[in-house]
Amino acid sequence: MDSPLARGAANADAAPTHDDVQAAHRRIADWIHRTPVLTSATLDRMSGAELFFKCENFQKAGAFKARGATNAVFSLDEAAAARGVATHSSGNHALSLSRAAACRGIPCTVVMPRTAPKAKMDAVRGYGGKIVTCEPSLEARERTLESIVSRSGASFVHPYNDARVIAGQGTCARELLEQAGGLDAVVAPIGGGGMISGTSLTCAALAPETRVFAAEPEQADDAWRSLRAGRIIEDDAPDTVADGLRVSLRPLTWHFVHRHVADILLASETDIVDAMRLIWQRMKIVVEPSSAVAVAAILNNPSVFAGRRVGVVLTGGNVDLDKLPWTQPV
Amino acid sequence: MDSPLARGAANADAAPTHDDVQAAHRRIADWIHRTPVLTSATLDRMSGAELFFKCENFQKAGAFKARGATNAVFSLDEAAAARGVATHSSGNHALSLSRAAACRGIPCTVVMPRTAPKAKMDAVRGYGGKIVTCEPSLEARERTLESIVSRSGASFVHPYNDARVIAGQGTCARELLEQAGGLDAVVAPIGGGGMISGTSLTCAALAPETRVFAAEPEQADDAWRSLRAGRIIEDDAPDTVADGLRVSLRPLTWHFVHRHVADILLASETDIVDAMRLIWQRMKIVVEPSSAVAVAAILNNPSVFAGRRVGVVLTGGNVDLDKLPWTQPV
Repeated sequence: MDSPLARGAANADAAPTHDDVQAAHRRIADWIHRTPVLTSATLDRMSGAELFFKCENFQKAGAFKARGATNAVFSLDEAAAARGVATHSSGNHALSLSRAAACRGIPCTVVMPRTAPKAKMDAVRGYGGKIVTCEPSLEARERTLESIVSRSGASFVHPYNDARVIAGQGTCARELLEQAGGLDAVVAPIGGGGMISGTSLTCAALAPETRVFAAEPEQADDAWRSLRAGRIIEDDAPDTVADGLRVSLRPLTWHFVHRHVADILLASETDIVDAMRLIWQRMKIVVEPSSAVAVAAILNNPSVFAGRRVGVVLTGGNVDLDKLPWTQPV
Repeated sequence: MDSPLARGAANADAAPTHDDVQAAHRRIADWIHRTPVLTSATLDRMSGAELFFKCENFQKAGAFKARGATNAVFSLDEAAAARGVATHSSGNHALSLSRAAACRGIPCTVVMPRTAPKAKMDAVRGYGGKIVTCEPSLEARERTLESIVSRSGASFVHPYNDARVIAGQGTCARELLEQAGGLDAVVAPIGGGGMISGTSLTCAALAPETRVFAAEPEQADDAWRSLRAGRIIEDDAPDTVADGLRVSLRPLTWHFVHRHVADILLASETDIVDAMRLIWQRMKIVVEPSSAVAVAAILNNPSVFAGRRVGVVLTGGNVDLDKLPWTQPV
């Protein structure tokens, strides 16, 4: 706790409560979309379930990450806010934190490996974020971030191992429960576990009868193995088309996953790409591969979901339209 | 009027009224989606206008054509219905008429050129439509259709030169006006003119202050030239990426276009593809090139739309995901 990474991160490292989710929802309401819930007769027929798709692909900055990042940024007191925020991410958290910082008018620094896609770097800069590149290794990333934080006093906002972030993600299930009415289950993809943790927190408080399922790529099944082992198992850079799900659980998300998650369901790479294409083709919406993992898991497990009312979190829609996975070898 | 094509098509060939639109809306309500209206901060910023996107890409069978086709099918009396419906189309009208016939439980025959994409044929068959192929010429198409109609007594439902179809398409603007509130303008693409005619009819009755603009590909500008010439000018199979807009006006649609349309705005092929990609990327929805023509026209004409509240009809979302226009030479 004496690490400079903890500075300014008050309440960031204790498990959040449902009060924190409610406070987050009030705090971020003006800065995020209350995204719509869509349905699909085709996917209902294929799954045998009644599916309610929470469309976070329509969220600000294109993914649910806007919720947690915005809550973290607007949780800071004036003095901490003035010193700005920093993170390491080459994905949606980087975009969302940059955007949230811009909303509050404070600086944001993002550490990215120098190999990160130019499109992602451009998007971060488009939101006003400052990028510091490093070598593509965990060690380089953490060292670079630590030096930024100790020099600037910026608050580190971890992509998911952060109570403010988890509380923010919990607002998504809160809206989904209101919009869809009673649900037998909610399914969301799991990478680091921020969305699943927030969903668990909200469902435990508002709808304890609603079971929370996580969906994970077979090729990045560290959370599945963690749940079976009863402890966090980390994978080093697993390879999956679901690029948002390559990270591992951390203590705060493990806290929720091992207490609340009914099960973790796996999907193969082919299943993920097929489900993604199916969503584009039949629902006419752009979702990223991570979102499709949840749909693939439902289609793979009719015995779990058929006849049920099931919420599905479509987590984001940031894809490279020039490189669609069905035009690439899987 | 003695042609077998007119049989069973009572009221199909006189200009519809607003009463017909209201009746259509009651008739089709249980069979179509009341599609959502989306907004986009990015597109508002780029256009300088306040845009309200009526998402007919989310409509049943993937396009607004479900409205007119469903109205035509459910307008038939029992005796005519029992003989079924028939049309010629290799596009969204074929899907929509097949689906509408299936909803009513009556036969549907679609004449398609033998060169039509297999995916479209499969989709028609998926909705229960029967396909009769012909040589790819207008003459062969009409002769084939006529023979089907005279043999079966099926009612011919033209893709747009049909009062029941136009009245059905008019229900789209009716919803849009309710959902978006007062609008200064509505912009929709123009091919044969069915959507623009229905939109004109509805706006003239419900919101006479709302100006109706049509958007057309430069490379298929027959409606633009017709409006300037004061008479229908037909193009023979113009080439444009906006495959839904390659057809020409007919008397019923010309009736509305030359009376009500404020102007027809053109967009180049590059503008259309850029606008399509922009919609996918920023709005996270799948729209077909025809829909993008309206957005391209708005971005091309800030002096017409900046500072205005503008409704935009996103007409459909049926695209071949394996052949996206930005991966093809334009």
